[in-house]
Amino acid sequence: MLSTMQDVPLTVTRLLKHGSTVHGTSQITTWTGEGEPHRRSFAEIGERSAQLAHALRDDLGVTGDQRVATLMWNNAEHVEAYFAVPAMGAVLHTLNLRLPADQLVWIVKHAADRVIIVNGSLLPLLAPLLPQLSPVEHVVVSGPGDRSVLDGAGVQVHEYEELLAGKPTAYDWPELDERQAAAMCYTSGTTGDPKGVVYSHRSIYLHSMQVSTTQSMGLTDEDIALIVVPQFHVNAWGLPHAVFMTGVNMLMPDRFLQPAPLAEMIESERPTYAAAVPTIWQGLLAELTANPRNIESLAQVTIGGAACPSSLMEAYDKFGVRVCHAWGMTETSPLGTVARPPAGVSEADELGYRLTQGRFPAGVEARLTGPTGEHLPWDGESAGELEVRGPWIAGAYYGGAAGEDFRPEDKFSEDGWLKTGDVGTISPDGYLRLTDRAKDVIKSGGEWISSVELENALMAHPGVAEAAVVAVPDEKWGERPLATVVLKEGATADFEVLRDFLGEKIAKWQLPERWSIIPTVPKTSVGKFDKKVIRRQYADGELDVKKF
Amino acid sequence: MLSTMQDVPLTVTRLLKHGSTVHGTSQITTWTGEGEPHRRSFAEIGERSAQLAHALRDDLGVTGDQRVATLMWNNAEHVEAYFAVPAMGAVLHTLNLRLPADQLVWIVKHAADRVIIVNGSLLPLLAPLLPQLSPVEHVVVSGPGDRSVLDGAGVQVHEYEELLAGKPTAYDWPELDERQAAAMCYTSGTTGDPKGVVYSHRSIYLHSMQVSTTQSMGLTDEDIALIVVPQFHVNAWGLPHAVFMTGVNMLMPDRFLQPAPLAEMIESERPTYAAAVPTIWQGLLAELTANPRNIESLAQVTIGGAACPSSLMEAYDKFGVRVCHAWGMTETSPLGTVARPPAGVSEADELGYRLTQGRFPAGVEARLTGPTGEHLPWDGESAGELEVRGPWIAGAYYGGAAGEDFRPEDKFSEDGWLKTGDVGTISPDGYLRLTDRAKDVIKSGGEWISSVELENALMAHPGVAEAAVVAVPDEKWGERPLATVVLKEGATADFEVLRDFLGEKIAKWQLPERWSIIPTVPKTSVGKFDKKVIRRQYADGELDVKKF
Repeated sequence: MLSTMQDVPLTVTRLLKHGSTVHGTSQITTWTGEGEPHRRSFAEIGERSAQLAHALRDDLGVTGDQRVATLMWNNAEHVEAYFAVPAMGAVLHTLNLRLPADQLVWIVKHAADRVIIVNGSLLPLLAPLLPQLSPVEHVVVSGPGDRSVLDGAGVQVHEYEELLAGKPTAYDWPELDERQAAAMCYTSGTTGDPKGVVYSHRSIYLHSMQVSTTQSMGLTDEDIALIVVPQFHVNAWGLPHAVFMTGVNMLMPDRFLQPAPLAEMIESERPTYAAAVPTIWQGLLAELTANPRNIESLAQVTIGGAACPSSLMEAYDKFGVRVCHAWGMTETSPLGTVARPPAGVSEADELGYRLTQGRFPAGVEARLTGPTGEHLPWDGESAGELEVRGPWIAGAYYGGAAGEDFRPEDKFSEDGWLKTGDVGTISPDGYLRLTDRAKDVIKSGGEWISSVELENALMAHPGVAEAAVVAVPDEKWGERPLATVVLKEGATADFEVLRDFLGEKIAKWQLPERWSIIPTVPKTSVGKFDKKVIRRQYADGELDVKKF
Repeated sequence: MLSTMQDVPLTVTRLLKHGSTVHGTSQITTWTGEGEPHRRSFAEIGERSAQLAHALRDDLGVTGDQRVATLMWNNAEHVEAYFAVPAMGAVLHTLNLRLPADQLVWIVKHAADRVIIVNGSLLPLLAPLLPQLSPVEHVVVSGPGDRSVLDGAGVQVHEYEELLAGKPTAYDWPELDERQAAAMCYTSGTTGDPKGVVYSHRSIYLHSMQVSTTQSMGLTDEDIALIVVPQFHVNAWGLPHAVFMTGVNMLMPDRFLQPAPLAEMIESERPTYAAAVPTIWQGLLAELTANPRNIESLAQVTIGGAACPSSLMEAYDKFGVRVCHAWGMTETSPLGTVARPPAGVSEADELGYRLTQGRFPAGVEARLTGPTGEHLPWDGESAGELEVRGPWIAGAYYGGAAGEDFRPEDKFSEDGWLKTGDVGTISPDGYLRLTDRAKDVIKSGGEWISSVELENALMAHPGVAEAAVVAVPDEKWGERPLATVVLKEGATADFEVLRDFLGEKIAKWQLPERWSIIPTVPKTSVGKFDKKVIRRQYADGELDVKKF
């Protein structure tokens, strides 16, 4: 039996049309570093998106689903590209300006970007790469910056404002299939080639609805949202799309991401909400301590991208700023969970809930898969790899397998769920607590041992400065933990004492038999423990290991 | 270019699974009239929905997309049917127990309902009709009421609780297409046969997301929602589905819809939110004035189904209860608009916004069509027929054309929009203000005259008790207004004085030339002006009309 409902697609175009009319007076404010910030209404964004689409089609010849890339900060022009490119039927590709040059080159070629819209301040980054970016025919420059670095680059160079000037402020947006590609973003792991995630119009629309529910950000047109999380980072967590649904005003920091200007823009523009990764909030806290500012407007902030220490949450509590944890990935658009405590929770339990990764919404199905492939109960105890399913979650990568060492079965289950690579527990009321990365878990005799749990327990010992635990091959158990320890100055190594210390908190069968003192834990470029290096050192016999 | 997103359908099944796990401790409380109300957790609803599905399939042989009807009050068992029937792949048909018997019979036959689940208290209504309800093979009875009236009814009779007892509390719910029918509801106009609207899994899911946004009801799992609007009335405005998305607790009045028990349940169960039509709120206000109760828990109420007088809104303001207007139809699932004032509105302007029908969300596209078919601007002035488009809006009726005098082109535009039959204006910021029904508007020389506006202006005159204005044929202008007036006791008729009085508020070309004194305005069974009768009386020469 067929329903009698209209078959209306869920599209980015609808978000643009709605936001630029019903919420036409809502504003995007872009920080300029000096003087009055720049302000543009949603109605103007609508008109200028139409002008940009005309320019891309008529002047630059963009047709079909060609890719238009952006190498931009968070600002009003970047939002115009967010809407104009998908609404005209093309695909927006946001480039991560923090990536190493070779990865940027790889990504632009893999996506076959024909146009790059770039902020003038980022030309020194782009210009040297252009000779290698063979698919790129057009570079469109917006905002201040020396254009001369593009001389002789072998591409057509355009001024953003000149392209838009005089173009019609309306565009006959095509009717699109909701499953059509709208935007793409590459995720770069520590190994293998970057992997392209392609968002559909449908996934962006549904994700925008989710952001607008009371369970997620729950903002209204009375709010001003400071979007620190970059627009090249999973669509700034979907916020620029979602605000067009509900008329939330946006405050955009452009390139002014240092603690001092952030504090200044909070004091003067009085945002009610902000979204950023923990390091930004750490930096801002230090700035506020050194140079007090009035940040009383800020009621709620979302922290994602990495776990937030409880000390940071409590520090902001004192400012009257409510920190809310969220978890997601490039592959999950990114809203996976948001850590709003359940109704009726006691004050004592509240912080515990806030420190979880958060609660799953209806649009994200979750399951935990154990070491032997079985699905584990939601009991808050059983730890397994988190797998998720839903209409805004990736089921593949652009162009299929990426790189030699990439195996699709490592990322997607046979029945199509995304394997997140994260290990954790889920409570009966749907709160996720991540404990480890799947690749760092020790698979010992059909059971899993969390390396992170062992490390935290070890680092609680007064003589231990740092500790890293990695899996090493074991004939009997498959894998067993190797504990590598950095001692504090003046402390001496007594592995038996350390093991007894661990034994007070950790089950006996999980205690390491292999121990090694190392001078320092190897780290990645972003400061995370680089366990690959330790595993290789162990395999190559470079470590002095005691076994008992 | 295809997206790499998973293709996951939006289904009622997902709402059930999510609500009964992540929000498993949320509750449905059903009023019983005496003693402690009945309480059931969402987890129990999940288990019992599985049991109901087993019973319907295994005991009653429901297969495919067969229709299962409900003739029930608002209660936990009705919610179980809401989820079990669509999730198993069948179609839920909610029967409006207020309909005349002949229409109920017509609807059950038209939908081919095979099963009716009925509350015991409604058996006196159902039993006499059963001999005419040929498609019905099974009647399932739930709750108190004399079963003997079903003796010899020629159908198989089952006890709801006996059917469920011992059945497995899990069900292997099938994977469904999101465009598949989930539920149906008939709308009965004043003319023609009832028309069936068939909701899809997709439309119910998207509508639930909309209800859960801050723009609409914006409730969380801290709320308790008193659902007075019947579940047979456009799925109780979609609330029972939506609360499974966010864990909102529900308070269900069952058959206790009179002002006194409603006041009692508000005082004792302390709901934070309620939804009902204006007459319920009028009755409750009178009750609260006569017998004061503590209703301080109630923060927000949604009023829909008819326009809410400002006096009623202001009366509830004094109780600290915020009344929020909403507009919709059976054909719109029903959420069309919600009257939340825009950010930054002055206190003086706020009531004006609250008295509009409300603001359109992104999911509802709207346009106004004028007398000659042109689309009118959103200027708050131009009045036209409201047409809407969106994924939870009907584009047809079940079985196509219904009744001899039904023409699809009167209800749906050539490009598939729903013609609402309502005439009004839309402000630049997307607020709808309805002024008239399309059939009551006077089409005079290519312009529209609002009958309601003329009536309101006339009734402001101290000598006028009631006034009804209808369109009558006119050789020169096509149609012109006829003013029929009921005088107050002791007042005398002076049409020229009345016309001058009107002239102070109404444009000269809109003033009626035809006037008639009538003893009383004919009314429909629900108390609305019956303008059909006046038009017929005029055509038959039964009115004493003065023309000048």
